[in-house]
Amino acid sequence: MPSVSKKGRAMPESPIRKLVPFAEQAKKDGKKIYHLNIGQPDIKTPKAALDAVKNNSLHILAYSHSAGFESFRKKLASYYAKHDITISQDDILITTGASEALVFTMGSITDPEDEIIVPEPFYANYYSFSTQSNIKVVPVISSIENDFALPAIAEFEKLITKKTKAILICNPGNPTGYLYSKSEIKALAKLAIRYDLFLISDEVYREFVYDGLEHYSVLEEKDLNEHAIIIDSVSKRYSMCGARIGCMVTKNKSVIETAMKFAQARLSPPTYAQIASEAALEAPDSYHEKTVAKYKQRRDLVIEKLSQHPDIKISVPKGAFYCIAQLPINDADHFCQWLLSDFSMNNETVMLAPASGFYSSPGQGTDQVRIAYVLNQKALKKATKILIKGLNTYRTKFESKTKSEN
Amino acid sequence: MPSVSKKGRAMPESPIRKLVPFAEQAKKDGKKIYHLNIGQPDIKTPKAALDAVKNNSLHILAYSHSAGFESFRKKLASYYAKHDITISQDDILITTGASEALVFTMGSITDPEDEIIVPEPFYANYYSFSTQSNIKVVPVISSIENDFALPAIAEFEKLITKKTKAILICNPGNPTGYLYSKSEIKALAKLAIRYDLFLISDEVYREFVYDGLEHYSVLEEKDLNEHAIIIDSVSKRYSMCGARIGCMVTKNKSVIETAMKFAQARLSPPTYAQIASEAALEAPDSYHEKTVAKYKQRRDLVIEKLSQHPDIKISVPKGAFYCIAQLPINDADHFCQWLLSDFSMNNETVMLAPASGFYSSPGQGTDQVRIAYVLNQKALKKATKILIKGLNTYRTKFESKTKSEN
Repeated sequence: MPSVSKKGRAMPESPIRKLVPFAEQAKKDGKKIYHLNIGQPDIKTPKAALDAVKNNSLHILAYSHSAGFESFRKKLASYYAKHDITISQDDILITTGASEALVFTMGSITDPEDEIIVPEPFYANYYSFSTQSNIKVVPVISSIENDFALPAIAEFEKLITKKTKAILICNPGNPTGYLYSKSEIKALAKLAIRYDLFLISDEVYREFVYDGLEHYSVLEEKDLNEHAIIIDSVSKRYSMCGARIGCMVTKNKSVIETAMKFAQARLSPPTYAQIASEAALEAPDSYHEKTVAKYKQRRDLVIEKLSQHPDIKISVPKGAFYCIAQLPINDADHFCQWLLSDFSMNNETVMLAPASGFYSSPGQGTDQVRIAYVLNQKALKKATKILIKGLNTYRTKFESKTKSEN
Repeated sequence: MPSVSKKGRAMPESPIRKLVPFAEQAKKDGKKIYHLNIGQPDIKTPKAALDAVKNNSLHILAYSHSAGFESFRKKLASYYAKHDITISQDDILITTGASEALVFTMGSITDPEDEIIVPEPFYANYYSFSTQSNIKVVPVISSIENDFALPAIAEFEKLITKKTKAILICNPGNPTGYLYSKSEIKALAKLAIRYDLFLISDEVYREFVYDGLEHYSVLEEKDLNEHAIIIDSVSKRYSMCGARIGCMVTKNKSVIETAMKFAQARLSPPTYAQIASEAALEAPDSYHEKTVAKYKQRRDLVIEKLSQHPDIKISVPKGAFYCIAQLPINDADHFCQWLLSDFSMNNETVMLAPASGFYSSPGQGTDQVRIAYVLNQKALKKATKILIKGLNTYRTKFESKTKSEN
């Protein structure tokens, strides 16, 4: 029997999805689950986007341009201009989700065994796409002690080798919710220029910023035109995760031309989804204002509720819709599974993402979970209550045992 | 300035699309172009598919299952059963086009420097996806002399090394239109088993078969359950190239589980396109009967018209909607460009795909073009007339010069 590849074996299972069988069993057993484990927003997609697809008049669902609709790219250039990012439609390549933008970026700038440095914890699929591209993720550890702020530049410098091709950040961050400051971006820009590295910035949560702070993009740094690559997506911005439309943006002509060859190979991004995504740009400003206000309330609620527990340490997110909570337990993977398989409160439970899946360094984050606050206030209140009850029950059941084992 | 990767530089430009600037200029100059260069059908998408999207009632365009809608996979299993392919929904992974199915397949079964053997000429993007996956395409040359039939098994055997992981065929073939016979598939199956190789079969043109012949799938070979992988797509079958929905099908559990990890990394295939593709399965049998009858007429017309020229050699395709024509010239790349930039007949010209892009062996196919007969009868009549006139004009202008140079 022919066998699968080493690469295939090395591909990580989704840390979020590996609990799915336990969740399915819990549902079969009649339990209600509050999903704090996945970044699927409950916000409605803009009406303009939904209507554009409903009202389309296509008779033949044909290929589009490999770089995506030109009309869409022109409108996107205007969108970026509003965010102080000055680019033209030719600097944009429409991709099938941010996922494809990452794969094209890695393919365009790295060869097997090359390295990219990524602040850890990081979006788990960065590791998957790196494995798929035969390159190595080199983590630089950020800490919950300072809300996962940018590690010291010296820490990056220690990790730079001849194989280092890029630094990859997520801003605001998934899973941390950390928003890099202008001075942090400027420090990274200087570093990228000094060592001639690409600076890849995943900015899919650009609009999700709280407390009057402002997002600062790598493409606002004028000296970084040849180094900066933005990864973007409509998934969270317009609650259109199922569209599978993203883009990569760079003013580096060689990179965009190279990425275009990857894009031509796969022919074109999905047509219906482009129609929806182009129309979503017509959503009024109030769409994001309302959405962000809602997420801010949710964030505040989660922080307030979990902070009441003396042994939960929580990093206050300034952006995106995730936060990392450090729990007074040893094995968050087991705790998350146990919540599904062995615990309930009035026949309800919560599903969380164990944070270990967001670290590539062994043994990191084993006492942390990622909480996606994508539920309404009422559900969040319930869910945090269940989480705290579950935590306390779990500790009495397992921690004494664990302690005696130590 | 940081530079692009070796891989990025090695990625081929689309052989079809590199003539696009010349076509754009010709259009600007007011010329009408008959497009015989690209497999974009002019057939209408099934109404059921278009209507399903128009009538969708989604309020949130959410992620789907990473393997695709379960309901869609179940219906697909029934579709395959009608084609004597016995599989379950768990043997299917819905992908973003056949392109992604190929990338996932290559990722699941090959590591850098591994080799796959592919009968040449082949679909140009096989080379792109192999380059993207850091693996090597090893061509085994088929010949226009016998309509691009399967090369002798001994020719494959000569090429098998320790690095060989798979044989990849396209059946019926793009660009050749060749339909492999049952005995050819059986010979390949024996070979795959003897050398423990995967046999990947791109069967996206399954329905497009003429002259009362029948398609025989690699998954009809019972002994091949662990070796066979089907690559499939709705693009041509339902004239839905812009959907970007395909799938990979295999009964090899390790392969499908491995591919699933690649699928989880990119989250899900596009939702709207899945809605359309699932509904397309409801298209009546008459949809394909009419479509195939139309393509048969077109094929017959192209063969008839081009066969009238004593120096054009044409392989009669038994499937798909392409054929390779061997022209009495030395440089088909230049001829195709010249047709756009320097030639017209009543201000009209044709666009062809030079066949050199479908060969990886240098110097092969330089006198061949691929013709996609995706236009109506009237347009095809005009286009073949222009092609013959262009060919004769080109020969008087260039071939005498070439001959004197020789």
